[in-house]
Amino acid sequence: MIQNAVILSTGDEITTGKVVDTNANYLADKLAEIGIDLVAVITVGDVLDRLEWAWRTAIEKGDVVISTGGIGPTADDLTTETIARVAGVKLRRDQDAVDHMKRLFASISRPMPENNLKQADFPEGATIIQNPLGTAPGFNMPVTLGGHTAHLIVLPGVPREMKPMMENTVIPWIAANRGTDKVYAVKIFQTFGMSESALDEAVAGLIKAEEAKVSFRASFPQISLKIRVEGKPGEVDRKLDELARRVREKISQFVYAEGDTSMEETVGRLLIEKKLTLAVAESCTGGLIGHRITNVPGCSQYFKGDLVTYTYDVKEGVLGVSAETLKAHGAVSEECVREMAVGARKRTGANVSVATSGIAGPDGGTPDKPVGTVCIALSADDQSFTRRYQFRGTRDWIKLITSQVALDWLRRYALGLPLADSTLFRR
Amino acid sequence: MIQNAVILSTGDEITTGKVVDTNANYLADKLAEIGIDLVAVITVGDVLDRLEWAWRTAIEKGDVVISTGGIGPTADDLTTETIARVAGVKLRRDQDAVDHMKRLFASISRPMPENNLKQADFPEGATIIQNPLGTAPGFNMPVTLGGHTAHLIVLPGVPREMKPMMENTVIPWIAANRGTDKVYAVKIFQTFGMSESALDEAVAGLIKAEEAKVSFRASFPQISLKIRVEGKPGEVDRKLDELARRVREKISQFVYAEGDTSMEETVGRLLIEKKLTLAVAESCTGGLIGHRITNVPGCSQYFKGDLVTYTYDVKEGVLGVSAETLKAHGAVSEECVREMAVGARKRTGANVSVATSGIAGPDGGTPDKPVGTVCIALSADDQSFTRRYQFRGTRDWIKLITSQVALDWLRRYALGLPLADSTLFRR
Repeated sequence: MIQNAVILSTGDEITTGKVVDTNANYLADKLAEIGIDLVAVITVGDVLDRLEWAWRTAIEKGDVVISTGGIGPTADDLTTETIARVAGVKLRRDQDAVDHMKRLFASISRPMPENNLKQADFPEGATIIQNPLGTAPGFNMPVTLGGHTAHLIVLPGVPREMKPMMENTVIPWIAANRGTDKVYAVKIFQTFGMSESALDEAVAGLIKAEEAKVSFRASFPQISLKIRVEGKPGEVDRKLDELARRVREKISQFVYAEGDTSMEETVGRLLIEKKLTLAVAESCTGGLIGHRITNVPGCSQYFKGDLVTYTYDVKEGVLGVSAETLKAHGAVSEECVREMAVGARKRTGANVSVATSGIAGPDGGTPDKPVGTVCIALSADDQSFTRRYQFRGTRDWIKLITSQVALDWLRRYALGLPLADSTLFRR
Repeated sequence: MIQNAVILSTGDEITTGKVVDTNANYLADKLAEIGIDLVAVITVGDVLDRLEWAWRTAIEKGDVVISTGGIGPTADDLTTETIARVAGVKLRRDQDAVDHMKRLFASISRPMPENNLKQADFPEGATIIQNPLGTAPGFNMPVTLGGHTAHLIVLPGVPREMKPMMENTVIPWIAANRGTDKVYAVKIFQTFGMSESALDEAVAGLIKAEEAKVSFRASFPQISLKIRVEGKPGEVDRKLDELARRVREKISQFVYAEGDTSMEETVGRLLIEKKLTLAVAESCTGGLIGHRITNVPGCSQYFKGDLVTYTYDVKEGVLGVSAETLKAHGAVSEECVREMAVGARKRTGANVSVATSGIAGPDGGTPDKPVGTVCIALSADDQSFTRRYQFRGTRDWIKLITSQVALDWLRRYALGLPLADSTLFRR
């Protein structure tokens, strides 16, 4: 019966600070989703006696031990060997794994190096976990030490290979061995425009603690809201649907996606749906909005262009902002961004445009317009809207929050929602 | 005598996957710099018996134990209490720390909550480490368990507070207690345009293993090269200067910075030095070059604007690319990017410009121009240059490498170096 876990991360590249261990974070998140309590993460370098200590300790403390890394073809990949030693069993070569590797190398027309064969060796008693995307399969193996049995789950360190193995094989297996007939379901809402405490308060009134576990994850500038339901098979999906319905009803305008979708993907999907084309005019964000828009494959269906105008001259020459406006109100003004947005549409023929101008800092603030003063405009056939904001933070935060608000306006425009109805910011 | 270390990361936010533990990576890197061997990283949540286990284990295995987090004012901050329990000593309130906190709260005109007083409690025998940027001071304390003495170093979890404490107090203290009269010095070169193996080969011929420790860290698209020298005081700086001189002589054109400087900062500094102004014209990179340029404070001194033109129409209308060029060669052609670069200068009055056009994928490739085909141009009063590249990778990688090559061309142009002399790419 699996109730808790230990994660084991191995590799000199982690203990010498060359790479950040993002695998442990991913695994911790996935375990939390199925209600497994993570006792500890233990990280050691590629040193035999440290690995042995780490495995013994992990087996002692966890019902399941998940390890990433250390199963490559080179001499410093010691995971399999260490486990065989700790478990007191021999290694056995698996012919299917050898064949899979040979096919992989043949598919890229390369001979298989002899040392790759090591990756087809497994401790006796191990069940192989297929790795469709790489040469190193993983394995699952029960080991008993001092009367406690732990299930060792060994996965490759490459995230692109490890994640599908975790999601398709390991998580369902752990979920089925939790010693409960309950199942679980998870829903994630991506939100923007409400603070974490406002979200918390809104959702607390909708979902009782005994109905679901609700958690938030803030990754500036968005906050994701995760609802986790546990219950009898056949019940959980219906229960989750009902809770999701309540959430949508209450905060729908702040939810820009359900699942792992970015704001710019949502904006792209909506522009295609509404048959709209987009232009951008940027000053303080300097190209970030265009960059985000063009991170989405297929954006050429709706994206015309982005005119980043950093000087008065270029605002006038390229976007047609009037010299009078700049003289009377300055570049950081609602008047200026309105003309920028209109100019971007005129120049590109787009149906809708957004424009930004502000003081990203750290220098350039004045008493009237301190660092963080940002004006945003949206221009469309049927609507024109501007607002001045006062943001706080470093240069990169101010650029990022500005780009997020502008994209959120596009989302709201496409959906027919009020543009600037966020509870987050005041002028 | 301190020769090795254990890092202890604590917090439910790490064990439930809500945040990535970047502190451990930072600490591992700093320890490696002064030659301290990192035995293990142990991570546990805010659970008293797990914390106690983690501290006992760390004390047993490390000469120094560095912990981050768990010294805030709330009930789940258990680090100080756990250490007192493990060491078998009492807590003692420090009046200076109380006064420091009171001053901090007074400076933001807020009353100090009563529970903050907890942050002024330290185990007997602890030496306080000042935290100028926050309310929670750290401490350093020797603890002996089972005959082995470990020095516990307790720091706050907030990186902005923790890092200066580490660099100004902890690292010098550890370095002075390594039981050697040797000192060390470190130099970092930021490089672009050589592969890691080519760099390795180049440097291997210049620096013998006994002269210095050389390490690489690839964070796409750049690779940093770190040289670490250890020796007698008074000698190491001279030794490091000599090695750095050899490196510069051999690979200077691939080194865009020494220390922690980004490519876009270097480009900005050079444009100011050479009194040049810059314009950009982007297609496949979609605004990323402008975004990177404007991440540098003060860029308005040299940056005029960035015309992101995603469609034929906008390339013609905004940049003046000729319809004939587009018809004959397509948008992804050296002919088109040359006209884009020229148009960007004409439109903005800038002295120098770069332009990009390519197929970022995953769709849109053809047999003639597969995904990853990218053309780049630079235009200046005295020079005009274009090249076609074939990059590999995902959409975001292709955007990023393209932006990096374009920025590197600007750096090379300002320095009078050949523009496209990288060993990395072939057409």
